[in-house]
Amino acid sequence: MTQGEEMVDPAILDRVRGWRDYVEAKIGFRNHWYPILQSDDVKEGATATATLCGERLIFTRIDGAVQCLRDKCLHRGVRFSHKPECHKKGSLTCWYHGYSYRWSDGVLTDVIAAPNTRIVDGNRGVRSFAVEEAKGLVFVYMGDRDTNLPALSRDVPPGFLDDDLHVQSKLRVVNSNWRHGVENGFDTTHIYIHRESRLIQENNLVLPLGFAPSEHKSFTIVDSDEGPIGVVEEYGPHVIPAFEGKIEGETVLTVPSDIEGKNLVPSTISMWLPCALKVDPWPDPATTQFEWYVPIDATRHLYVQTLGAKAATDAEKRAFEHEYHNRWEFYAFDEFNGPDIWAREAAEEGYADDHHWIDEALFEADENIIAFRRLISKRNQGVQRPEHLRS
Amino acid sequence: MTQGEEMVDPAILDRVRGWRDYVEAKIGFRNHWYPILQSDDVKEGATATATLCGERLIFTRIDGAVQCLRDKCLHRGVRFSHKPECHKKGSLTCWYHGYSYRWSDGVLTDVIAAPNTRIVDGNRGVRSFAVEEAKGLVFVYMGDRDTNLPALSRDVPPGFLDDDLHVQSKLRVVNSNWRHGVENGFDTTHIYIHRESRLIQENNLVLPLGFAPSEHKSFTIVDSDEGPIGVVEEYGPHVIPAFEGKIEGETVLTVPSDIEGKNLVPSTISMWLPCALKVDPWPDPATTQFEWYVPIDATRHLYVQTLGAKAATDAEKRAFEHEYHNRWEFYAFDEFNGPDIWAREAAEEGYADDHHWIDEALFEADENIIAFRRLISKRNQGVQRPEHLRS
Amino acid sequence: MTQGEEMVDPAILDRVRGWRDYVEAKIGFRNHWYPILQSDDVKEGATATATLCGERLIFTRIDGAVQCLRDKCLHRGVRFSHKPECHKKGSLTCWYHGYSYRWSDGVLTDVIAAPNTRIVDGNRGVRSFAVEEAKGLVFVYMGDRDTNLPALSRDVPPGFLDDDLHVQSKLRVVNSNWRHGVENGFDTTHIYIHRESRLIQENNLVLPLGFAPSEHKSFTIVDSDEGPIGVVEEYGPHVIPAFEGKIEGETVLTVPSDIEGKNLVPSTISMWLPCALKVDPWPDPATTQFEWYVPIDATRHLYVQTLGAKAATDAEKRAFEHEYHNRWEFYAFDEFNGPDIWAREAAEEGYADDHHWIDEALFEADENIIAFRRLISKRNQGVQRPEHLRS
Repeated sequence: MTQGEEMVDPAILDRVRGWRDYVEAKIGFRNHWYPILQSDDVKEGATATATLCGERLIFTRIDGAVQCLRDKCLHRGVRFSHKPECHKKGSLTCWYHGYSYRWSDGVLTDVIAAPNTRIVDGNRGVRSFAVEEAKGLVFVYMGDRDTNLPALSRDVPPGFLDDDLHVQSKLRVVNSNWRHGVENGFDTTHIYIHRESRLIQENNLVLPLGFAPSEHKSFTIVDSDEGPIGVVEEYGPHVIPAFEGKIEGETVLTVPSDIEGKNLVPSTISMWLPCALKVDPWPDPATTQFEWYVPIDATRHLYVQTLGAKAATDAEKRAFEHEYHNRWEFYAFDEFNGPDIWAREAAEEGYADDHHWIDEALFEADENIIAFRRLISKRNQGVQRPEHLRS
Repeated sequence: MTQGEEMVDPAILDRVRGWRDYVEAKIGFRNHWYPILQSDDVKEGATATATLCGERLIFTRIDGAVQCLRDKCLHRGVRFSHKPECHKKGSLTCWYHGYSYRWSDGVLTDVIAAPNTRIVDGNRGVRSFAVEEAKGLVFVYMGDRDTNLPALSRDVPPGFLDDDLHVQSKLRVVNSNWRHGVENGFDTTHIYIHRESRLIQENNLVLPLGFAPSEHKSFTIVDSDEGPIGVVEEYGPHVIPAFEGKIEGETVLTVPSDIEGKNLVPSTISMWLPCALKVDPWPDPATTQFEWYVPIDATRHLYVQTLGAKAATDAEKRAFEHEYHNRWEFYAFDEFNGPDIWAREAAEEGYADDHHWIDEALFEADENIIAFRRLISKRNQGVQRPEHLRS
Repeated sequence: MTQGEEMVDPAILDRVRGWRDYVEAKIGFRNHWYPILQSDDVKEGATATATLCGERLIFTRIDGAVQCLRDKCLHRGVRFSHKPECHKKGSLTCWYHGYSYRWSDGVLTDVIAAPNTRIVDGNRGVRSFAVEEAKGLVFVYMGDRDTNLPALSRDVPPGFLDDDLHVQSKLRVVNSNWRHGVENGFDTTHIYIHRESRLIQENNLVLPLGFAPSEHKSFTIVDSDEGPIGVVEEYGPHVIPAFEGKIEGETVLTVPSDIEGKNLVPSTISMWLPCALKVDPWPDPATTQFEWYVPIDATRHLYVQTLGAKAATDAEKRAFEHEYHNRWEFYAFDEFNGPDIWAREAAEEGYADDHHWIDEALFEADENIIAFRRLISKRNQGVQRPEHLRS
């Protein structure tokens, strides 16, 4: 069993009610778009690699356009990236016997060590993947490349692709399954772990310890064949913030509750297929944080943090970049989200043998997470399975 | 499969005759008492952790009494011990969402991030474990905590709890299954590995290379519903010590056999449920060594070495402690038992795929070990299984 | 599951056509001779160890003859080699209880710690293996030691045992299954990876990038009950060397093609049961390279490189040794074969979950490899299986 191929015991899946696909999707859902690299990672004429949903990928950039192939030669299964050879623009050659493929569609065009071999028949090739770039990120469509390729806009949160949004991003590998990223990000009560955050203390924000259960359903399901599909949690009247922590009636913790003159961010937190979070506005009334928890393999995800701000002119863009690098990269991405990474890795251990998917003790505050589990189980485009890595 | 969950192939178990439960009990037997920490390891108001029979445990001491819970929050399965929070005396809070439990019984009393949640219903809780302290050790009852809790005295060797016995102890992790500890400790012919021991040479002792098989059964089975259950090997007339080693008739090894003026220790070696050895007297006519081989998980055990001596007064206790630290800790626990640890780790490799449980070539001298295998298979209180770690 | 015991999924084996035994033989074929150590590795009266086809072995040399036993005591399964004891010439004693075995046949003769034990009945013993030495190498017969032991000559390439051949050798562990060694060595187009070799550039050799497919079958199958069995690839008229590499009609690579005054080596490359390659002549018109890819366990093989030259006198032998150490060891074994080792380890990853055995895209140039797969599947003497490691 190679990396990414470990699947969930069917005896566990049979006990899941309402979100079986989600529990099964250990290495993610296929036929969706995922951000996987920064545009700067793929230089013209050079190669780069990444792993997405268990699939090892090799990238290049040709005449400005990013190309992506499965990083595995048909012949002996070796990785091109061990010693990438590009002898001709538009072509990738395997270092072992010279099997040469077109970057644009993966078709095998030549075997350098054996001119005129009959194995070059125009039909054989390595799997190629559709790529789009947006907001400085490289998105890959993990699925079959056919004429029905969905628009990238279907798989990103609303607003992210807006022309006037300027985006800064940071990518890193987290040692947990992607779903612990999703559930940590969309979790409304995990803010308990942020109660001593310097982001809150030093940036004019206020954050409660959590929320008392409300009588009102506070989230909305967005389900459409046209645009992105997600669950939107609205803050405001529907939640009752708790600034005091009690145990058996005794107050044991308090956090500042004076909202006078403070920024009351965020107003909505929403989760979108396949694995993107939008926190709006955050951490400032003028910025929005979009995050992806991209499946790498069964035990790792790529944490894609992005911060967007409206910027009409180049000067406004430079000003936002300056603010990002001098303020929000540290306070928001590193200091505030640091404990989130740590929490996901702790949850990875809790769910390691998959039994906790049926043993977990969720509560009212997790209802938005459950809604997303149900929604993605119904509306995903296919569970990624080990056989997809070989077909 | 998480640590401690690996079980024995049923095809192997089906071929075991007479001691199937023992071969199956890879992570130990449940519903027994085990020593797991030194009392000094658990300070008032602080926490400590240990793993017993595959179960991760967290401890504290409240008003002098040690409390023990499963180290796994009901909600997301994370370990409390990653960042232990005790905001109120008698209460343990999970760092992630503030799920708070009573140390005394594990009941969930509050969720700090969500006041008034309905998940706090007085019935839910994490598993709690009964604890007793004796002779400077913390014992845990690995089993269901109910009204029929057996007395600690049922599960320790006779004499260990005597009021006038003063005990010194040392705990360390050994990289072998617990059963290789049991079988190494109770093995009457493994003394072959101790033939160059400085304990023997420098402390007025005498030790043969082994024993010729005797016509007489040299051990007794103690089987009772009241007190501890075990197998007692009596030294003396029933064994014929061998001071010469021969191969094909030729003498190849000799060890000193002159017993004039030497201490002839031990006179009995006995093994007690669930996993305790008593060597009496040893290494001195005035001391007794008690040892436990406590299951941690499938491939590790906690080696609990204790040395007891009669001490009526504080002055006698201090004198014994001085003798222990200046003499026996080195000679007996480290120098003499060092090769035993090494031998258990070698046996771990020999039995690694469990096939050697049916392929092993035991001989007459192993009959006391076989008697213990049969006895514990008949009288254990339950095999610890992976499902117990989740229920 | 211990090292070497991992077998191939039967669902994969069922899809293999023509060479099922070969795909199944993850830890090699049994009832064959394999080189496993250099003669110098086994000193008179000392011990040495090696692993062959998953089987851990211990060696000694007694009165000049090498002896070999399974490195596992019958009693507790421990390895003798943890602390080898030889108290008497011809005898190996286990360090744990003194179980003593005859080196010559593995029979248990004594237990030092228990004189006169009935377990010594003349029938019990550890498995012993037949050994022969030739050309400075120790060969082990991995199989049942009975009266029908085949001659070593059956399992080595023709010419290797010639009286007038003087042999120099080098052994090292490679982190790939043995079959990737076989297929890399016998592969006629993998020379693509050697196109920048200093061996070629600095030693008067010429090497194309590969070969155009020929209409003629260029290999011969040698199948005989008497001598070695193998596949011989003849170079010369049957192959069309390619000195230009093209992609989609465009020349992208060229290597020197002027053969005037160059050594046109080799003329034949042949592969022999169970796992030996002969390249003749190579790298010089006066030398022949013989190689073995000896199964260690599922993921490692011993790469046995040997170079032979005719030498009638001691002076000629010394001259060849000088040439080997000053020229060919570096140019041929290290510099030229270095990328081969690297390629095998890359292939190990490609075939790691065994699926690539049914997914691989072989082509015409691999027909000699396919012929060897078919031949060894038909004529091997038995697949080595986990149960052989325990019987």
